[in-house]
Amino acid sequence: MKIAVLGYGTVGAGVVDVLTMNKGSITKRIGTEIDVKYVLDLRDFPGTIVENIVTHDIEDILNDPEVEIVVETMGGLKPAYEFTKRALSADKNVCTSNKELVAEHGVELCQIAAEHNVNYMFEASCGGGIPIIRALNTSLRQDEILEISGILNGTTNYIMTSMYDNGETFKEALKEAQEKGYAELHPEADLEGHDAQRKIAILSSLAYGHHLDYKKVPTEGIDQIRIQDIQYAKAMNMKIKLLATSQVAEEGTWAMVSPRLVDDQNILYHVDGVMNAVFVKGNALGDAMFYGSGAGSLPTASAVCADVLDCAQHPHETLKTDITAEPLAQMPTDQVKNTFFVRCSGGESQAKQVFGITDTMHVIDGEFGFWTPEMTEKDFTKKAAQVDGIIKFIRRG
Amino acid sequence: MKIAVLGYGTVGAGVVDVLTMNKGSITKRIGTEIDVKYVLDLRDFPGTIVENIVTHDIEDILNDPEVEIVVETMGGLKPAYEFTKRALSADKNVCTSNKELVAEHGVELCQIAAEHNVNYMFEASCGGGIPIIRALNTSLRQDEILEISGILNGTTNYIMTSMYDNGETFKEALKEAQEKGYAELHPEADLEGHDAQRKIAILSSLAYGHHLDYKKVPTEGIDQIRIQDIQYAKAMNMKIKLLATSQVAEEGTWAMVSPRLVDDQNILYHVDGVMNAVFVKGNALGDAMFYGSGAGSLPTASAVCADVLDCAQHPHETLKTDITAEPLAQMPTDQVKNTFFVRCSGGESQAKQVFGITDTMHVIDGEFGFWTPEMTEKDFTKKAAQVDGIIKFIRRG
Repeated sequence: MKIAVLGYGTVGAGVVDVLTMNKGSITKRIGTEIDVKYVLDLRDFPGTIVENIVTHDIEDILNDPEVEIVVETMGGLKPAYEFTKRALSADKNVCTSNKELVAEHGVELCQIAAEHNVNYMFEASCGGGIPIIRALNTSLRQDEILEISGILNGTTNYIMTSMYDNGETFKEALKEAQEKGYAELHPEADLEGHDAQRKIAILSSLAYGHHLDYKKVPTEGIDQIRIQDIQYAKAMNMKIKLLATSQVAEEGTWAMVSPRLVDDQNILYHVDGVMNAVFVKGNALGDAMFYGSGAGSLPTASAVCADVLDCAQHPHETLKTDITAEPLAQMPTDQVKNTFFVRCSGGESQAKQVFGITDTMHVIDGEFGFWTPEMTEKDFTKKAAQVDGIIKFIRRG
Repeated sequence: MKIAVLGYGTVGAGVVDVLTMNKGSITKRIGTEIDVKYVLDLRDFPGTIVENIVTHDIEDILNDPEVEIVVETMGGLKPAYEFTKRALSADKNVCTSNKELVAEHGVELCQIAAEHNVNYMFEASCGGGIPIIRALNTSLRQDEILEISGILNGTTNYIMTSMYDNGETFKEALKEAQEKGYAELHPEADLEGHDAQRKIAILSSLAYGHHLDYKKVPTEGIDQIRIQDIQYAKAMNMKIKLLATSQVAEEGTWAMVSPRLVDDQNILYHVDGVMNAVFVKGNALGDAMFYGSGAGSLPTASAVCADVLDCAQHPHETLKTDITAEPLAQMPTDQVKNTFFVRCSGGESQAKQVFGITDTMHVIDGEFGFWTPEMTEKDFTKKAAQVDGIIKFIRRG
């Protein structure tokens, strides 16, 4: 079985590494030997194991009938989208780690794959090495999924952990993450929650059997979290986590990405550093969690290779997934109920009256914080407008 | 697609419940309607949803060509072993939650299934609802698994948690667990580790691609854990967990079930109460953990139903699993390296000299505790024999 790898970056190189180092056991397990015949990249890689198989021309791959599986680890939409479409149309399976492309064009690409009796697989698009996509597609189909709540971005979780554990400011924690290679030079997509937004859209689409457009997921990042927020969290024995959540409520399904305060009874509280985790609640299964490395060369490559192995065993059979174009019915976000932790610089009696609360916390001089009762986002916004001096609020997770 | 359920106990009833309550979504997802045609039990169930489908005669099921899937939730070896063999030989798939049977005869039953182009599936045999079997069979095949370490028994984890959180004695915690239905009236198989022993044997056999005989897994339960041990654990910010472990070491693979002291950097530290979790380390994946309800009617039934759905989609195709009769090469247990926490009633200077340590802890009047350096089980046994007054020891997890 010959495969081609598009993009020899962190993940692409990891895929070649995994297939090389585990060749013996993989061949034994699936009964087929998998060989990397091409690596497509703009660069050459002299002196590496791929120096003799590098090509700069996608046509070499698309026109080679021996290549039955294409691994797309280029990232971004251009030219990944076009290359993927052309590979699928040439009856080649495509396995990808490219969450942007899956979130943007996954439905269409799965349809093209099905028309050609091949697969478009994307285990590595959510949660790095965590085998959550396959779990949703095969292990949890007997359940009605009621909730997914994930720590789906390692960069932001690393920053939150550094601020909590080491008392670092947001800027210090970000700088350290960049130095260690856990944050990109332009980390906005991570910090502002857009990476997690794409991932929760993909997971929700599979879990609920209807398509959730990532652009319709209200998203807030951690870029506004400051050390003062961490101080309150610590005083309450809680942590702040960037949670990507979707939930089936009585009034409909909602999805949201936002920083949330979680207590130590929540298993996600214990997911620290660059680790990722996906909490899933099923109507029979109950609470479950999948935990692992959310990024990194080998863990992400491991997930890509799981897809490659499935395709190698079924090169001309579309394995059933629940991805569909039919849109997921979302309830209006302003009707979603939450409790909110609010920090104010003043107006305590006003706040107590408006929100009908009695308890406030005084963790930082010159300000106070309090938890609202459960209420809709709409009601919260309305009430918050009546209180002077609100500095910020964080939802409960 | 017609199925039969053997044994209408907790799990069997759960299977009927899940297939009933989620019928719509299941039919949509797999494109086939699944109907329970028979329930085999010694009892009748008048006034329940199964009253009209109860049979007391296995021949009704075995002789009905319409039944393509048999769910075996009887537990124990007799008559489950015979019924399973006969069902498989009649070209019927069998899905089970029966860990005793899988651990004892799984290899043979998988072979019979393969000969008849059907499946013997056992997702529910390890970790209740946690989809760990399917993960090992499909999601992690690209990895060389280096370690599995699981909290695989809810009864013992509940007792450990009660002793830790509420300061209960072992007897009090056990009584409470029995009152709440988390421990059986005759809980020896759980308390002495035999339940976890079977489960780690099953998981290890799949992970390493060679058969691990459960009888060859050295096993110690929690029945000797006392409140004093918990006091030491607390003083060290650790917890005691019954861990079922197998690990690929340089010298070979070893497996063991024993209570272990784990610190809060270990994700298993945070798995409390009746919850189960399986930690897996892969050579590419790195660290991962699967967490969920280890028992209970609906969660366990959910796992059985995942198997039923797979069989319903592939009723006459044996899905590849790595179960094999070829035995796993185990290293001698006395060569396994550990560090040991030792409690002594006296002989402190002797202990320091024999184990070459300087630090001891004095948590309980009239005794002391200490950690040994890392050493083989054999060396530990030899040294321990030279120290008077050793009360007990617990390994590090």
